[in-house]
Amino acid sequence: MREAFHEQLDSVFHDLAGICEKVERAVALATEALMTGDPDTAERVISGDAEIDRAREQVEDKAFSLLSLQQPVAGDLRTIVSALRMVSELERMGDLSVHVAKIARLRVPNVAVPTEVQPTMARMGEVAEDMVCRVSSIITRRDVEAAIALGRDDEVMDQLRRTSFTELLSDGWEHGVEAAVDIALLGRYYERIADHAVSVANRVVFVVTGHNPARADN
Amino acid sequence: MREAFHEQLDSVFHDLAGICEKVERAVALATEALMTGDPDTAERVISGDAEIDRAREQVEDKAFSLLSLQQPVAGDLRTIVSALRMVSELERMGDLSVHVAKIARLRVPNVAVPTEVQPTMARMGEVAEDMVCRVSSIITRRDVEAAIALGRDDEVMDQLRRTSFTELLSDGWEHGVEAAVDIALLGRYYERIADHAVSVANRVVFVVTGHNPARADN
Repeated sequence: MREAFHEQLDSVFHDLAGICEKVERAVALATEALMTGDPDTAERVISGDAEIDRAREQVEDKAFSLLSLQQPVAGDLRTIVSALRMVSELERMGDLSVHVAKIARLRVPNVAVPTEVQPTMARMGEVAEDMVCRVSSIITRRDVEAAIALGRDDEVMDQLRRTSFTELLSDGWEHGVEAAVDIALLGRYYERIADHAVSVANRVVFVVTGHNPARADN
Repeated sequence: MREAFHEQLDSVFHDLAGICEKVERAVALATEALMTGDPDTAERVISGDAEIDRAREQVEDKAFSLLSLQQPVAGDLRTIVSALRMVSELERMGDLSVHVAKIARLRVPNVAVPTEVQPTMARMGEVAEDMVCRVSSIITRRDVEAAIALGRDDEVMDQLRRTSFTELLSDGWEHGVEAAVDIALLGRYYERIADHAVSVANRVVFVVTGHNPARADN
């Protein structure tokens, strides 16, 4: 009975890692759509989000039925409740990728991001993708050290966002209000993807150690 | 035993409504800070957020101990898990109020929002505050009808956000990039407060009926 339960719990974490991989692809494609202005790539992110939503519902149903039928306590209970929270955050990261793709689509046939800001935005996209990729592995391996390291790297994203603001608020900015607003919102979306990645990683730390690193920081 | 359990469950919902009232005050003060440029009002929102965070932790601990000690099933289990999700969203709404207050503080002694956009932004603040106020009552009364009505009113916020974009992207815009970026981000923060309000209300519907209105819409 307990063994079957732990197999089911492992299966939930396997599903979470699978959703995280889908989110990683969504982030990568959304950045590609943004940098190329390719409408088909943007559409793939937007239409692909339904798959992430369905996968989330399946994990929720599975976790809920484990809670209900197996009546776990202590560490097992903590793990299932954490899984429910993690899947909400992963789904949200998918939504944020859709927001990025929609800005790309809105500016077709142009590219939303002016040339001189492209390096900063491309780097934000890379950092977000890399963080989501690391979260997949952190979930699969229950890797506490990698999770704590991820939290430290969040500062890189904050710094990139500050750089993008410096660029669009400089006297030399010649791309008008619309492009500036796009960049401010895109920066916000990437920053939120990174925040959620850190939060999901912190939940893995909580599952393994019983201690949530985010609580101490608040 | 069951009676004591339901008293504790009621107490969790009482706490949730209390947090929601704190969030309502935070939204109201953040909007006031934004419209007046008063730094003390902004500071009250920013420093007051720690209280919301603490209240969230208390609800989480109480809900978790109910899950662990009482081993609820079916509707009771659904209710506690929903409470855990609701408290996360309420805390997030507090964070978003802080983001609004920080933009207000950043522009002191000026007012971040130019005169001609003030009616739209003030209306966004009012709509957000009203939605959060209604959520308190929805939680307290487990009011399914009011919750469903709230979901319909979310469109008002979306329309206001579109209006603000029309204003800042018009040819007559004379306030430069910085004010436009502020307004775009402020609009995003208010929109997210409204989204979370709808989501919390939907969770109340789920608690009462076992059906989540958001899932059917996805």
